[in-house]
Amino acid sequence: MKRILFRSAPLALAALALAEPALAQEASTPNAAQAVSGGTGYIFNTLLFLIGGFLVMWMAAGFAMLEAGLVRSKNVSVQCLKNIGLYSIAGLMFWVIGYSIAYPGFEGGYFGIADFPYAMQGVGEADTGTGYSVASDWFFQMVFCATTASIVSGTVAERIKIVPFFIFVTLLTGFIYPVIVSWEWGAGWLDAMGFSDFAGSTLVHSTGGWAALMGALIIGPRLGRYGADGKMAVFPGSSIPLATLGTFILWLGWFGFNGASQLAMGTVGDVSDVSKIFVNTNMAACGGVVVAIIFTQLRYGKADITMALNGALAGLVAITAEPLTPNVGMAILIGGIGGALPVIFVPILDKLKIDDVVGAIPVHLVAGIWGTLAVPLTNTEVPILAQITGVVATGVFVCITSGIVWFALKATIGVRPSEEEEMAGLDLGETGIEAYPEFARGT
Amino acid sequence: MKRILFRSAPLALAALALAEPALAQEASTPNAAQAVSGGTGYIFNTLLFLIGGFLVMWMAAGFAMLEAGLVRSKNVSVQCLKNIGLYSIAGLMFWVIGYSIAYPGFEGGYFGIADFPYAMQGVGEADTGTGYSVASDWFFQMVFCATTASIVSGTVAERIKIVPFFIFVTLLTGFIYPVIVSWEWGAGWLDAMGFSDFAGSTLVHSTGGWAALMGALIIGPRLGRYGADGKMAVFPGSSIPLATLGTFILWLGWFGFNGASQLAMGTVGDVSDVSKIFVNTNMAACGGVVVAIIFTQLRYGKADITMALNGALAGLVAITAEPLTPNVGMAILIGGIGGALPVIFVPILDKLKIDDVVGAIPVHLVAGIWGTLAVPLTNTEVPILAQITGVVATGVFVCITSGIVWFALKATIGVRPSEEEEMAGLDLGETGIEAYPEFARGT
Amino acid sequence: MKRILFRSAPLALAALALAEPALAQEASTPNAAQAVSGGTGYIFNTLLFLIGGFLVMWMAAGFAMLEAGLVRSKNVSVQCLKNIGLYSIAGLMFWVIGYSIAYPGFEGGYFGIADFPYAMQGVGEADTGTGYSVASDWFFQMVFCATTASIVSGTVAERIKIVPFFIFVTLLTGFIYPVIVSWEWGAGWLDAMGFSDFAGSTLVHSTGGWAALMGALIIGPRLGRYGADGKMAVFPGSSIPLATLGTFILWLGWFGFNGASQLAMGTVGDVSDVSKIFVNTNMAACGGVVVAIIFTQLRYGKADITMALNGALAGLVAITAEPLTPNVGMAILIGGIGGALPVIFVPILDKLKIDDVVGAIPVHLVAGIWGTLAVPLTNTEVPILAQITGVVATGVFVCITSGIVWFALKATIGVRPSEEEEMAGLDLGETGIEAYPEFARGT
Repeated sequence: MKRILFRSAPLALAALALAEPALAQEASTPNAAQAVSGGTGYIFNTLLFLIGGFLVMWMAAGFAMLEAGLVRSKNVSVQCLKNIGLYSIAGLMFWVIGYSIAYPGFEGGYFGIADFPYAMQGVGEADTGTGYSVASDWFFQMVFCATTASIVSGTVAERIKIVPFFIFVTLLTGFIYPVIVSWEWGAGWLDAMGFSDFAGSTLVHSTGGWAALMGALIIGPRLGRYGADGKMAVFPGSSIPLATLGTFILWLGWFGFNGASQLAMGTVGDVSDVSKIFVNTNMAACGGVVVAIIFTQLRYGKADITMALNGALAGLVAITAEPLTPNVGMAILIGGIGGALPVIFVPILDKLKIDDVVGAIPVHLVAGIWGTLAVPLTNTEVPILAQITGVVATGVFVCITSGIVWFALKATIGVRPSEEEEMAGLDLGETGIEAYPEFARGT
Repeated sequence: MKRILFRSAPLALAALALAEPALAQEASTPNAAQAVSGGTGYIFNTLLFLIGGFLVMWMAAGFAMLEAGLVRSKNVSVQCLKNIGLYSIAGLMFWVIGYSIAYPGFEGGYFGIADFPYAMQGVGEADTGTGYSVASDWFFQMVFCATTASIVSGTVAERIKIVPFFIFVTLLTGFIYPVIVSWEWGAGWLDAMGFSDFAGSTLVHSTGGWAALMGALIIGPRLGRYGADGKMAVFPGSSIPLATLGTFILWLGWFGFNGASQLAMGTVGDVSDVSKIFVNTNMAACGGVVVAIIFTQLRYGKADITMALNGALAGLVAITAEPLTPNVGMAILIGGIGGALPVIFVPILDKLKIDDVVGAIPVHLVAGIWGTLAVPLTNTEVPILAQITGVVATGVFVCITSGIVWFALKATIGVRPSEEEEMAGLDLGETGIEAYPEFARGT
Repeated sequence: MKRILFRSAPLALAALALAEPALAQEASTPNAAQAVSGGTGYIFNTLLFLIGGFLVMWMAAGFAMLEAGLVRSKNVSVQCLKNIGLYSIAGLMFWVIGYSIAYPGFEGGYFGIADFPYAMQGVGEADTGTGYSVASDWFFQMVFCATTASIVSGTVAERIKIVPFFIFVTLLTGFIYPVIVSWEWGAGWLDAMGFSDFAGSTLVHSTGGWAALMGALIIGPRLGRYGADGKMAVFPGSSIPLATLGTFILWLGWFGFNGASQLAMGTVGDVSDVSKIFVNTNMAACGGVVVAIIFTQLRYGKADITMALNGALAGLVAITAEPLTPNVGMAILIGGIGGALPVIFVPILDKLKIDDVVGAIPVHLVAGIWGTLAVPLTNTEVPILAQITGVVATGVFVCITSGIVWFALKATIGVRPSEEEEMAGLDLGETGIEAYPEFARGT
């Protein structure tokens, strides 16, 4: 059986509809503005949020595996605990207050809070006027909030206690991230000036990256990481296959992250755009991987697997600001440049003695900035000045607010375990459960 | 670009449909009873079963990883074998006889068998009158059957041979579980008296939990677990990240488990309800995690990662009986109480010398009972007496039938390996393949 | 609440639509040729490609985990690198040239290239005349291309350097695989003679399998695998749970692989067929697992976990050529016979000193041939001669072309690392990063 007849000829549908020849004619001429009935469009839009939502929820597992694979075995249990905990806290905080701040109902504003707590519709009720279920939208927005917190946990791993970490996550997901979102997706001042960030290169990834950077600066590097003699100790990750699994999970989840950020698939135009976004998202990651492999092969004579993984993620972050308007070649280019950034910036951070355990700052912050600034390359309606303003404003606000929180935590309950506890691994002191009790040396 | 204009104003759709302004007006006023054409509704309903089905199928991997992570390395290969084997046996048995018993076509009855074997429709045929493809429904039902068996394998791990285990699974999935299902979802006597179990807190999770409890009692604890001196040996799990991965997989799968149990999304009311279920399911798990972390932190001074994982699962089990009628706050509460149950009941089981390797009895049985009894709190149409009756009847039937099977297996072919084999690990004797041949100590 | 009223009576929908009684009547009588409006059908068809596409993309993670689990720990990092690299190369090559060769626009031909590079539609544009978004179709086709390359990486693991491996992948995904596809799905000569391969038992799995076989023959076995004295050394895989996880991922992905190969779900007939395919795909895998377990239990006295995993995969490969026309019993039989093939052929390959690290040749090539030849058993429109021709022609073409590439690589840049490097593990020499630096012995 032929699978597709001729891709440029209008025969494919006829072939597909062979069993129902009468339908072929009727169905063969949709156009971009093809209307579907209101109820059908509502269902499609809601379904997009639900599928996108569970895919992005799955990214929480991706971060957990990536980070579990890249920390030393003596800190793996705590890293797992932080990841499932942060997702849960993000869910609660986004319900208690976050969504109300993120979507305050203003236009062009800086801060506001909508009716609190967020009222969900009752059983069997529909949301007339929105075109989709508000619960499905809330779910989709909540998992983005959790993603932001996931970015932080990787950078500050192996030396922060869980209580201060969870307090930071509470404030990040309940306040800092929602304010940033309100400026753009919530119709605030950045939106009013023309800033564009399709699925969150800046709003999600840079926000997480700035918060991670402030954490790394204020908490300081892991013990023994940067010697007094200027020598750097390498602390290899405990499990490359888990890190690889985490990266594949994130890649999969990104189809929901970017694809469902189209926010609608109830018209043929919308679903076609979602499809384009899938292709561009995928190809940006492919570009990131290949560039990272080639760069490390040429630079070090060895293709670095962790850089390949970070290359995929940086490519994905880079395309996230605008996954729709680039053609495929541009998507590969944007992702490919993204993939080069960790190769360049991981050594720079180490030179600056900024200890980023999993490379989240190059991947989420640097590639997020690159992707945001690259939007005007393919989307001519977006002014570069607005993009720069968005990047800078996000950086300033997140650095100040998260810096205050990190400092306050450090000054009060403290952020780090004792030196003995850190050397022994956080698993023993913080959760009391070794990740691999039978075979890890715990070095 | 703003992402959502104003969530309380009817402008969002207009913004979304910017490219097709003519559509906005037409599509902007769906209501709960919004009709879609018969064919479209049929496709949506079927698609819900397919998506829900593959998500629940994926839970089989979740159980496999959770259990592989929580048993000692010398038993990991056998645990993997049991999990892929039980899913396959469940598939075959549910086809041979299970579905016919579960949906016997009676009203108010106790036992029946429909036409056997279950006839699937032919190629290109539709199922007039059902509103969805019967094959999609069958698939969705089959994966629930497998879930029930997955629950058992964790409790009785590390000391049961694979042949008696697989025989038990054959009877559980072909007979015990289907009879319970027929009482409620199959329109039997429990349904007639008003019992309500939306997605299976009792039918799936308690059934699995009772069967596991009987197994633990009849098979007995692992060698050396409870010393003659009353001291309990702790056998830590071999891989916390795999257990974490398993939990995230189960969480993801639960969106299918509960969400697709709405059984329809061909109206705006139905898809809105599916969305509510997604939110409540997610938030119950969040509540369970946070409660488990706080409880263990307060009680033991350390936040227990395995309790956090079990807290997520117990929260999910608890909300499964009624994920639709609670508002979000109630869902968090129901899940949060669920999350406390393992913290309370794991030590109780140990005191009773009931050896539950992964904590499946607190998670699936105890939280399942809690969730079932909590239904009347939010669904006023459900009488508490019916809920109690359902819980007790399920317990009595499953304990008797599974008890008979466990006893018969013990008395005939035997259930346990020799002491030497158990001490050496089941992997060597039962499958001959070590899980980690290069680095596990096998202690 | 009853879940399904009576499965043979037309009451179920009425129950489901209880909240909207007025709809029940209208929606209750769809039939196979039920028309949906052109726009709705377009959206459904596109959505099928997108869901199927992300599920098949996820199979890349499945292969990565399966292979990471079945190689020795000293080669795990390189195996992860090969897998994420091959997926990325496949994406780029299928965009640069592959799709243009696969769908050249000829009828009955042998080789052609369509307009290059493949033009994607612009933002908001729909593809009038195809009935689905071309971008969604491209994405779905691309992930199949990557799957083909994944098959090869497992067989030739542990002894091929990454540069020659990636060069081979470039040619396989850009040229060899697309030519095979063009013969059948691209409406070429195999299609013209009546050959049928629904989702790629031959086109994907055998193509990968033949390329892997040629690689194994030309590269030769791993050092020390087959002793001069005729004794065979067993090199056990480093992590059975990762291999199990990989198998479950592949099983999940296969619902997209086979289900979305229906290529349409915009009619009730199509979505019903997709549902049938889900059931048959699942049950073939169940059959494969159970047969593999019983066979190894009877033959060796132990149920072999790796054979159970391969049994699942072989069952899936076998049903892939025709997952629609078999009834469930036949699907179990086809998959069950598939599951027996690795048990039979793994020892035969070893006897022939063909070193297939993960058993990909029995699983993908042998079971792929079996599945292809079994099509006429249930699909009477397919001539067995066409099936045999397809199998042979694919084998001849892939063996010759891939053999040339392997030989050329061997003669020029070389394919194997030095003996010292191979003994030390490829991770040290090729990527410089150990997979498990803290606990693997590296033997």
